[in-house]
Amino acid sequence: MAKRLVIIGGDAAGMSAATQVRRMKTVAELEIVAFERSTRTSYAACGLPYLVGGLVDSPASLVARTPEQHRAKGIDVRTRHEVAAIDVKASTVTVRDLESGQESAVHYDELLISTGASGILPSWPGIDAKGVLQLRTLDDAAAVEQLLAAGARRAVVVGAGYIGLEVAEGLLQRGLQVTVVERLDAPMGAVLDADMATDVADAMRAAGIDLRFGTAVSGFTADGGRVTAVATAAGPVEADLVVIGLGVRPNAELARAAGVGVGESGGIQVDDHLRTDTPHIWAAGDCVESHHRMTGRSVVVALGTHANKQGRVVGTNLAGGDAAFGGVLGTAITRFNDMEIARTGLTEREAKAAGLDAIGVTTEASSRAHYYPGAEPMKIKMVVERGSGRLLGAQIVGGTGAGKRIDVLATALWNGMTVAEVAGMDLSYAPPFSPVWDPVLLAAGKAASVV
Amino acid sequence: MAKRLVIIGGDAAGMSAATQVRRMKTVAELEIVAFERSTRTSYAACGLPYLVGGLVDSPASLVARTPEQHRAKGIDVRTRHEVAAIDVKASTVTVRDLESGQESAVHYDELLISTGASGILPSWPGIDAKGVLQLRTLDDAAAVEQLLAAGARRAVVVGAGYIGLEVAEGLLQRGLQVTVVERLDAPMGAVLDADMATDVADAMRAAGIDLRFGTAVSGFTADGGRVTAVATAAGPVEADLVVIGLGVRPNAELARAAGVGVGESGGIQVDDHLRTDTPHIWAAGDCVESHHRMTGRSVVVALGTHANKQGRVVGTNLAGGDAAFGGVLGTAITRFNDMEIARTGLTEREAKAAGLDAIGVTTEASSRAHYYPGAEPMKIKMVVERGSGRLLGAQIVGGTGAGKRIDVLATALWNGMTVAEVAGMDLSYAPPFSPVWDPVLLAAGKAASVV
Repeated sequence: MAKRLVIIGGDAAGMSAATQVRRMKTVAELEIVAFERSTRTSYAACGLPYLVGGLVDSPASLVARTPEQHRAKGIDVRTRHEVAAIDVKASTVTVRDLESGQESAVHYDELLISTGASGILPSWPGIDAKGVLQLRTLDDAAAVEQLLAAGARRAVVVGAGYIGLEVAEGLLQRGLQVTVVERLDAPMGAVLDADMATDVADAMRAAGIDLRFGTAVSGFTADGGRVTAVATAAGPVEADLVVIGLGVRPNAELARAAGVGVGESGGIQVDDHLRTDTPHIWAAGDCVESHHRMTGRSVVVALGTHANKQGRVVGTNLAGGDAAFGGVLGTAITRFNDMEIARTGLTEREAKAAGLDAIGVTTEASSRAHYYPGAEPMKIKMVVERGSGRLLGAQIVGGTGAGKRIDVLATALWNGMTVAEVAGMDLSYAPPFSPVWDPVLLAAGKAASVV
Repeated sequence: MAKRLVIIGGDAAGMSAATQVRRMKTVAELEIVAFERSTRTSYAACGLPYLVGGLVDSPASLVARTPEQHRAKGIDVRTRHEVAAIDVKASTVTVRDLESGQESAVHYDELLISTGASGILPSWPGIDAKGVLQLRTLDDAAAVEQLLAAGARRAVVVGAGYIGLEVAEGLLQRGLQVTVVERLDAPMGAVLDADMATDVADAMRAAGIDLRFGTAVSGFTADGGRVTAVATAAGPVEADLVVIGLGVRPNAELARAAGVGVGESGGIQVDDHLRTDTPHIWAAGDCVESHHRMTGRSVVVALGTHANKQGRVVGTNLAGGDAAFGGVLGTAITRFNDMEIARTGLTEREAKAAGLDAIGVTTEASSRAHYYPGAEPMKIKMVVERGSGRLLGAQIVGGTGAGKRIDVLATALWNGMTVAEVAGMDLSYAPPFSPVWDPVLLAAGKAASVV
């Protein structure tokens, strides 16, 4: 009889793993059963702000692969099925059919936990009011559409991180009056240094967003169950629609309850092969903690790109291959209208918090030769270890063509380069693509002259 | 008395060196005299095709720094002065004032040869006809303008390399009927593998260029001294304007005549500090040969980005510092209308010619998430060493956002990464910037699965 791989969670990590196993093993060799709570598999949550903003034309286009498509590939996907418990000794999971309510025990030979993450929702009074939501699923996006159709005009976004920024942009594009309320003193406070975040704040204000920094939310007021305002320490902010974007937290309860090791970060502990500390149990995606290559610490970074990579790694290992996940650098990118925002490695603040003797060096540059049409300004901040000159991190804020340059610096970080080495690299040059000193080289050269 | 640095050639390498010396040494410490044949310094020859095409608005905008600006910084620039000879024993150069015709001997303590390169002009009959030119200087660009103003309608570009491609695009934008004549069977024959070049040829044809491959030029016919046709093995091609774009060759005669070592590549031999084999004589820019990091051979790569970097390196050394030029990878980029074309490292053909057991793996990908507006197709070819999986080179052809991704691969090459390592890197992801698997990761993953 075929051995059975049970997968808990049918999104990026789980279904990438299943797909990778299927590339290497037939159904007769390894049966795959995947349980998914919702009705959908493999959809691009990262596209939701652009669906709300009207840039993405239909919810269906965010679905990379439907349950039917997975089934046609020999993956037994069971939607609307929730795993309630893992019995490590019996090698079974308790599965609840959310339609019938029936529970059953399902045997596994190997188990993959890919339960993802959930949005952080503080226990603020009134948070259950109609009109207060997160943007985590296609159902959330549909709820936003309903509120807009019902005449919502005033939106408040709580949190000015990636999702807050992207949702604010989308709602602005839909013609709403948008206020962003943020506890910290700057947008992207967790991911950019304050000097870089200032440019983002300026762009948000210029676009017409009412930015309220240093403002703590205390709850929501409602009328007939519908939200009417966000209560803050600085008074109420009227709202017909509130989107909470406070980041996410790994769904690790199922693992923890089964005795599988969970780290201080809140994510499930895994080795580089994505094995947990419990035999035959693996984990991947937003629910695990990953090795940060710059600090050596374990961190939770919920990003589709890691989930997909980890899915492929664990799939390879489950199919008898040998693959390792190399860890993360904290690379990320987003956009606010025409402004591109990117980072990798450590910010100056993070580097100092990690006990490193770091300095930040900021360079202004142009995306193209100054004489070539469409040259856009950009700012690159390099975070460098004093003395050694080792690159620790970088942040970029600028116009078209700025953001993706972060990948060059991520590659440099991956290889442990110094800024002097980066400054000497043979990067591409032609007037439509960069000045004769590419901004990356320019910034590295300036940093090298300082450290 | 101050020591004197004499610089021969006042373009990118020479003036970058002078500027770097001035950052580190005062005039009282080290006098700098730079001799330049033309009337201009530090101008962006790489911008000339875009000036001709009408994208760059004025010749002046291509001048990064005028002789007056250099003089104001304490660099004694003497334009219209040609160095006729170097006397190594006497530590002098023979300088001819091109206005007065007078010659004089000028003493140097240190000498920098930055004489650049010249366009290759075969001794074809009729090549001196009016209307046959290269595009190497602002005067050449002015000559093109005069020909257009005089009614030139039919242009022939000889050579389908970088310059040929860029000039053809420019002339097409100006409304000319453009024919490109190329001896090889594909455009960019020296820099792309044939399978990638096909896409470029298709784009050129689609834009309305009459492409004549495998066609050797034998001369030009003229009427009253004006070109009327290009003679080829396949018959004449009528022309009012002919631009020769056959690449360049280092200006190394002056060095050779003085006994300074010149390599088989035709470039002046230098070490990584840009010292020649002759004491107190240094060389930098298009006239030198550089260490190719992938083959270990010495090659001539005439590119402004190297000239600027080498200028800074040699300037640092001349000022008593310690800097090294790390060599080249053969990274390059250009554009044909909306198509971006880039390469780094070795092509499959080059790798095999270098005796490496190389295979090419080509991947089609999209510049953005498939559901995000403006996603552009691209093709990435990875050249990989069989067995080790070491990346040897890469080529990219695609729409907006494709080309600059070559820098990630150049950085990977610089660090000697394998494709499996590249596939695991933490590159940035968000729907407006890439699919969840960035094309670079996708291509590396595919290559890793094959080698």
